[in-house]
Amino acid sequence: MANVKEERNLSMLMDFYELTMSNGYFVLGKKDKRVAFDMFYRKNPDNGGFVVCAGLEQLIDYIQNLHFTEDDIEYLRSKKMFSEDFLKYLLDFKFSGDIYAVPEGTIVFPNTPLVTVKNCPLIDAQLIETMLLLTINHQSLIATKANRIVRAAEGKVVMEFGARRAQGADAAIYGTRACYIGGAHSTATVSADIMFGIPAVGTMAHSFVQFFDTEYDAFKAYAEVYPDNCVLLIDTYDVLDSGIVNAIKVAKEVLEPKGYRLKGVRIDSGDLAYLSKKLRKILDAAGCEDCKIVVSNSVDEYLIRSLNKQDAKIDSYGIGERMITSKSDPVFGGVYKLVAVMREDGTYEPKIKVSENVEKITNPGVKELWRIYDRDTGYSMADLLTLEGEEVNDEEPYAYMDEIKPWKRRKFTNFKAEKLQKPIFIQGELVYEKPSLDEIRQYVKDQLENKIWSEEQRFENPHSHYVDFSPALYELKTNLLSEYNK
Amino acid sequence: MANVKEERNLSMLMDFYELTMSNGYFVLGKKDKRVAFDMFYRKNPDNGGFVVCAGLEQLIDYIQNLHFTEDDIEYLRSKKMFSEDFLKYLLDFKFSGDIYAVPEGTIVFPNTPLVTVKNCPLIDAQLIETMLLLTINHQSLIATKANRIVRAAEGKVVMEFGARRAQGADAAIYGTRACYIGGAHSTATVSADIMFGIPAVGTMAHSFVQFFDTEYDAFKAYAEVYPDNCVLLIDTYDVLDSGIVNAIKVAKEVLEPKGYRLKGVRIDSGDLAYLSKKLRKILDAAGCEDCKIVVSNSVDEYLIRSLNKQDAKIDSYGIGERMITSKSDPVFGGVYKLVAVMREDGTYEPKIKVSENVEKITNPGVKELWRIYDRDTGYSMADLLTLEGEEVNDEEPYAYMDEIKPWKRRKFTNFKAEKLQKPIFIQGELVYEKPSLDEIRQYVKDQLENKIWSEEQRFENPHSHYVDFSPALYELKTNLLSEYNK
Repeated sequence: MANVKEERNLSMLMDFYELTMSNGYFVLGKKDKRVAFDMFYRKNPDNGGFVVCAGLEQLIDYIQNLHFTEDDIEYLRSKKMFSEDFLKYLLDFKFSGDIYAVPEGTIVFPNTPLVTVKNCPLIDAQLIETMLLLTINHQSLIATKANRIVRAAEGKVVMEFGARRAQGADAAIYGTRACYIGGAHSTATVSADIMFGIPAVGTMAHSFVQFFDTEYDAFKAYAEVYPDNCVLLIDTYDVLDSGIVNAIKVAKEVLEPKGYRLKGVRIDSGDLAYLSKKLRKILDAAGCEDCKIVVSNSVDEYLIRSLNKQDAKIDSYGIGERMITSKSDPVFGGVYKLVAVMREDGTYEPKIKVSENVEKITNPGVKELWRIYDRDTGYSMADLLTLEGEEVNDEEPYAYMDEIKPWKRRKFTNFKAEKLQKPIFIQGELVYEKPSLDEIRQYVKDQLENKIWSEEQRFENPHSHYVDFSPALYELKTNLLSEYNK
Repeated sequence: MANVKEERNLSMLMDFYELTMSNGYFVLGKKDKRVAFDMFYRKNPDNGGFVVCAGLEQLIDYIQNLHFTEDDIEYLRSKKMFSEDFLKYLLDFKFSGDIYAVPEGTIVFPNTPLVTVKNCPLIDAQLIETMLLLTINHQSLIATKANRIVRAAEGKVVMEFGARRAQGADAAIYGTRACYIGGAHSTATVSADIMFGIPAVGTMAHSFVQFFDTEYDAFKAYAEVYPDNCVLLIDTYDVLDSGIVNAIKVAKEVLEPKGYRLKGVRIDSGDLAYLSKKLRKILDAAGCEDCKIVVSNSVDEYLIRSLNKQDAKIDSYGIGERMITSKSDPVFGGVYKLVAVMREDGTYEPKIKVSENVEKITNPGVKELWRIYDRDTGYSMADLLTLEGEEVNDEEPYAYMDEIKPWKRRKFTNFKAEKLQKPIFIQGELVYEKPSLDEIRQYVKDQLENKIWSEEQRFENPHSHYVDFSPALYELKTNLLSEYNK
């Protein structure tokens, strides 16, 4: 509907090597080879116990729009590195592989495939790499951070206030989307309301208070224009000596005579714990028990937990830079790795990436990701990786391998198994019905309430969710590793 | 030229309170009041000595395009908070104030105005706040980080590789622009080449090596397609046992017989200091003295300085997530504060923002920012803030005030004074000729080579650039502060 939604063609937002490799494959006659890639990550941000996966909707939009214009081709031609046949091929390019992914909002864990690209022409798989990673990495990072903040706030309202400190316009817009998925209630960013229906909120800045001759004049003016939504910013001069005094005066002199109430006061500086407790008492004593106390100023989950401990009297949080940038851990290191190449006969030859850094060794082969639930409690006991096509019969005990402790022979019993990835594109056609943003947000909430152990949700040393292997996958990986050691 | 350049209307990317305040001013009959705002920041990222200011070109584009569509108005109307006259006013809105700013690439310091909006209708000044901050904050942050990395690299090549970890598409595109301003030499991001002419570079990912049956096959294939630009990624299996062996084999068997040379090898894991030294010896012994060693993998200025100390043999760096997100300090806290309101007679009434946090007290009044240079050396001795219209005669000694140590009466002697801000918009019309990106990049380099003391450029405890006050500004601020204390 609105102008922010104008489509951009981000097709050329890719690493140059996607093009050099693709041209290489083309020239070498490999373009019809089909491959499989996994997108996964290795470490939870902020030493948390999980990640809220997000960004799939924008990835879908990107892939549906992926195409190359004459201008793009002209640019590539000017590099004098690309074959004319390849450039011609790009002009007609349309993504034609299969993509499976966990739905947005799925709680995910390290070293499990969030997105799997398979049965996919080599060039197609390569060309989507950069934006696939960028989109899922960014939104998963911010959704996870927002969810941490929302959990720390223990039911208090969390408002996203970060646009001015976001790393670019998209970071503000799609970051806000991710915050909402993570559980934020509203946003200051108007375009996020227009584009996604995330309620936009906001009242006044310090400049409004400064503009008038006195703080009282400013509050009075605001109360006259917005009597039914009067939240006053009370720290422009002095919170206790001036701000709250004038706010209450306006409540009594301007609002209450007309039948309105002072809706809230906001502080953006000072000792938030001390001031909020003082304010609560002053407001209550003045008969403003229903007036909310809103705080902002470099708030994040760490500060909120400290405020909780001090029994601060805060009703809602305006969270800016620390949520929209995930300041304490601003990079989500998702990677995209080749896991298999299709043979002539349609079977896959599994591939592994060995590394001097052990944690960088990949899980080979086309795999399936299962979530294993305890049949009695409904909570997830583990994730399980199997090879594609392996069945997991949850009607009888299932022997799995723990990669870290392979000597331990363990079985899942009394469990339910569910495949986590859904088909998104099949041969380039979208087959997925995108859920609404509110459904995604609710899905996050439901999982954390009913399916993910609280031990995996705590902030200090959360329990690491088990990610186990089917015996066949375990054998494949160990065989490939010993092959490379020869 | 190319499709990534399609214009977006980001007019509604603003905080909701810009609109509630603006509607308030409108309803209260204040819309023709004129005001002045300063955009400044308080702390250098990474405890550095300065910031490279960037983002002005995108701010200009934004302000030139700022307008509200019927859809935008319809959205606002649906909120039932805005007066119909205000909405009508917005439909015809065009920014009509004055903007002064330091040119992009200017080395700047805390508490000095990077952008000043003045002689500006109240609503205009408020509506541009969010994007002004977002744009300057983001690009200044990344340009400063890139410059730190480039300085640490001491002349070695710095390539921007961060798109996949950027916080959204704009962060990749405009972040790359900022990296180039800061001194990066090239980028992996194709659209940054198309949009800004920043040279795009790239060769192969691990997937290319994995795709082939053997590492040698992969290298050979690549060398055959790109004999004159053959940089091989040698850490897919084992750098020393396999990667470098196969790379040299390809140099000797495929490249050299045709008159080509192995251009480079890249490692993306392992001990970069140890491996680079080993590789240099092996390459030299094989007669590949001209083969460059490229490293990537979570590199930043801290790691580079450690590698330098270890005498690592590295010719160029591919810098990803730590530059494109400024990972070690991912927020640039620029703020935008009301400094004056114009009276009926055209003079300004200065405004101050007091705060419980002393560092949040603002400098009042419409000001001018001067850089003071030593006439002999050309290096900058200090910045000076004066009130608008004050002259600084650099032909004779100038007595200034040091706000932190006001008892010290000091004078600039033998100095040159230069106004740092240039007029950008006058009454809404663009009056500024935008420099090219290469000019901006060169300007950064020139200042750091010839105008900014090395003591302010060092990484540990850099000297804080002096920011002094004219006696008149000092008096104004102290008077306003004591007024509020009464």
